Amino acid sequence: MSKRKHIVIVGAGFGGLKAAQKLKKNDVEITLIDKTNHHLFQPLLYQVATAALAPGDIATPARAIFKNDDNVHVLMGEVSRVDKTAKTIHLENGQKISYDYLILAPGTRHSYFSNDEWEKHAPGLKTLSDALNIRENILLSFEKAEREPDPAKRKKYETFVVVGGGPTGVELAGAIAEISTKTMQQDYENVDTGLVEIYLVEGQPHILNSYHESLRDRALHTLGEMGVNVLLNSMVTGIDERGVEIRINDDHSTHESKEGSDYRFIETENVIWAAGNAASPLLRNLEVPLEKDGRIDVEPDLTVTGHPEIFVIGDAAKHVNNDGRMTPAVAPGAIQQGEHAAKNIVAALRGESHTPFRYFDKGNMATIGRARAIAEIRNQRFSGFFAWILWSVVHIFFLIGFRNRFRVMAEWLWYYITFRGGSRLITRRKMEEVLPPRNSAPEHVPESAGQLEFDSERNRQG
Amino acid sequence: MSKRKHIVIVGAGFGGLKAAQKLKKNDVEITLIDKTNHHLFQPLLYQVATAALAPGDIATPARAIFKNDDNVHVLMGEVSRVDKTAKTIHLENGQKISYDYLILAPGTRHSYFSNDEWEKHAPGLKTLSDALNIRENILLSFEKAEREPDPAKRKKYETFVVVGGGPTGVELAGAIAEISTKTMQQDYENVDTGLVEIYLVEGQPHILNSYHESLRDRALHTLGEMGVNVLLNSMVTGIDERGVEIRINDDHSTHESKEGSDYRFIETENVIWAAGNAASPLLRNLEVPLEKDGRIDVEPDLTVTGHPEIFVIGDAAKHVNNDGRMTPAVAPGAIQQGEHAAKNIVAALRGESHTPFRYFDKGNMATIGRARAIAEIRNQRFSGFFAWILWSVVHIFFLIGFRNRFRVMAEWLWYYITFRGGSRLITRRKMEEVLPPRNSAPEHVPESAGQLEFDSERNRQG
Repeated sequence: MSKRKHIVIVGAGFGGLKAAQKLKKNDVEITLIDKTNHHLFQPLLYQVATAALAPGDIATPARAIFKNDDNVHVLMGEVSRVDKTAKTIHLENGQKISYDYLILAPGTRHSYFSNDEWEKHAPGLKTLSDALNIRENILLSFEKAEREPDPAKRKKYETFVVVGGGPTGVELAGAIAEISTKTMQQDYENVDTGLVEIYLVEGQPHILNSYHESLRDRALHTLGEMGVNVLLNSMVTGIDERGVEIRINDDHSTHESKEGSDYRFIETENVIWAAGNAASPLLRNLEVPLEKDGRIDVEPDLTVTGHPEIFVIGDAAKHVNNDGRMTPAVAPGAIQQGEHAAKNIVAALRGESHTPFRYFDKGNMATIGRARAIAEIRNQRFSGFFAWILWSVVHIFFLIGFRNRFRVMAEWLWYYITFRGGSRLITRRKMEEVLPPRNSAPEHVPESAGQLEFDSERNRQG
Repeated sequence: MSKRKHIVIVGAGFGGLKAAQKLKKNDVEITLIDKTNHHLFQPLLYQVATAALAPGDIATPARAIFKNDDNVHVLMGEVSRVDKTAKTIHLENGQKISYDYLILAPGTRHSYFSNDEWEKHAPGLKTLSDALNIRENILLSFEKAEREPDPAKRKKYETFVVVGGGPTGVELAGAIAEISTKTMQQDYENVDTGLVEIYLVEGQPHILNSYHESLRDRALHTLGEMGVNVLLNSMVTGIDERGVEIRINDDHSTHESKEGSDYRFIETENVIWAAGNAASPLLRNLEVPLEKDGRIDVEPDLTVTGHPEIFVIGDAAKHVNNDGRMTPAVAPGAIQQGEHAAKNIVAALRGESHTPFRYFDKGNMATIGRARAIAEIRNQRFSGFFAWILWSVVHIFFLIGFRNRFRVMAEWLWYYITFRGGSRLITRRKMEEVLPPRNSAPEHVPESAGQLEFDSERNRQG
């Protein structure tokens, strides 16, 4: 009596989840392993980071998704090693799990281009933990600004720098511009939202390089309207607790240095990294050649060269269609690859051969603030309010679970009508951990909103 | 021209918030300071700890509550000192704020009866951060159990101990019993919910000492039905990473020791402390005599002896009515005192005298699980389903904000119909931080749900 084949899937993101959903209907055992206990809807992560949505709105426990599937076993854990010869994976505590087929969908992590010391000052945005950390940093910054009567000292709390002009960076910068002007304006007295500065730093001459020129221009224009300072041709050369150093590569510069570079320092406590991705380090021990960014160059059928039982999909895979087009590192790419890997495994189980994967580009979209977005579908390009409606509908549709769809729609409705995000709670840190000590000059909280007076109270003290 | 009087309120809990709400209508300036940035609805905190509600359902940013009140200034910070002579408070970073009137409503923290080293193994439940920590511990325990094939080693992950048989402990134990039998049962394979053990440890001969005997008996009975082992006359004598040591003081014991004590060790990774409260250490530097638990024995009008401009209210205050009844440390007590302190300040501003506070006992209620509760109002006692409806209505009513009321009602409806709590996300830790390493004996995840087989896969490995 032949035993069921065992498929191990590493990663419960878009790619891994879709593969598990497609495979489960077959006569196989599936083990789905993820470092977290949930499937995360990453496109909306920036909304958790900017206090518009709550974590529970965009994440579902992986167990909940497969609770009715007896042949899908969900584990929380991290894969430390793949033993291709023994067809076994090792988990972080030494446990081993054997497989007949392996699908690796571990995604990417942020990359600081060898400047790993920047990470503690410039967190990235890949996980819910990242998003909650960033959200708390932003909220604490405003609270610190509220405690600081000196506008010069307050500056670093009111300045935000997002590094990286791709869709994530653009969406983050736009969302921060929104909360700092509208939401915060109602709640804070000392923080003059006209003085809040938001920078988007991009090394190339354009943001949103993967989009058509007309849409890029529109996005740039919209960001400007929202008060975001977009610095193009600007590379980050240093990040520490005081701020960010930037080198501006301007061929048209008229300044003295003939090298064509100018440096600039932005004083800030708030830096978010959205500039570089490198594939999960797990792939290194597969002992196959890797791309510069750590990704694996997979065969047309999504397998690892020489190992038809090992698939790599999603952001961690580099796949090129036979017409030369590369699958972009976006959710639809991972979803389609997950589906195709599942299809190829089913074919193999039937003794049939694999087929090559072909990415079908359904379009791209990015949102910039409350009611504006850009979208390109086939050769149609949209921008503005209509694009934003389209973006909203597509994202709601792809969210897992009816409850989440309902909740996100309700949250967006509330937020877009009232400008008040529902998730502005600080739960991880206290002020004593984050405020520097100060001398004991007596001060008094302003008497009334908007006025910065140190008046008769101070005289009474002195 | 006389300047507005400045009232500083320390603590944005029930007492501080009510005082601010009552005072703001007057011609005064109010500064409200809290260690967190939000008002927390503590009675439902145990539901965040047991993954039934999300943090945002029971907490509102303090700034949001007072955003339309120009004379209320909200600050996030911690008061380190009260200088009664200078009528100034000092914040954690050295900043000072002067006051004309001071209301201290700092609440209580958990007390381990001088065994502070127990805290890291047995967290308490006072803040959102506590609740999220406990929630994550519970969820991680189940994940760890799922990774452990050996039932004996799995025991400590499947055992939960709540210390303290007051309302908080009872509610927690009941809620944990619920999630581990109903919610978890659907999601986990290795975890046999029949083997999950929950203990409620109480030093006195009865749980819920403040309730009438008939209601205590009913609660005890209900907990038993839900599978909670209630250990009465049991004092905790030690807590470490392996578990809890308990001394049973049983006068009717038939065992050998004539001292009447027996010891017991419960192997567990999950201990929650709900057994002792001590008033905020801030009160110590008021330099007035304190009760054993750190509370201040206030005057009948809620002021500190000799300082009619300083009020202490809520859990941190010990107040006795002129009929000898003490205000219990519950939300209605804090709310009524907050209101009365405000009233006395307004009287003082008018040149009138203070009036003594008198607590009006509207009743007590505690819930035990999904649809059962106990309640006593005046001399009426209720239990069971009706009491639970009453409890739900009262708690919804007192929640701040229409949105929160709607959300909690929606969450409860979903949870009570489907048994599926909406907040089961692990975001703070990874398995590699919490799992001990193991030897490399090959193992295999069970082939199908409910079966613990190490079968042909293992043979293949060996």
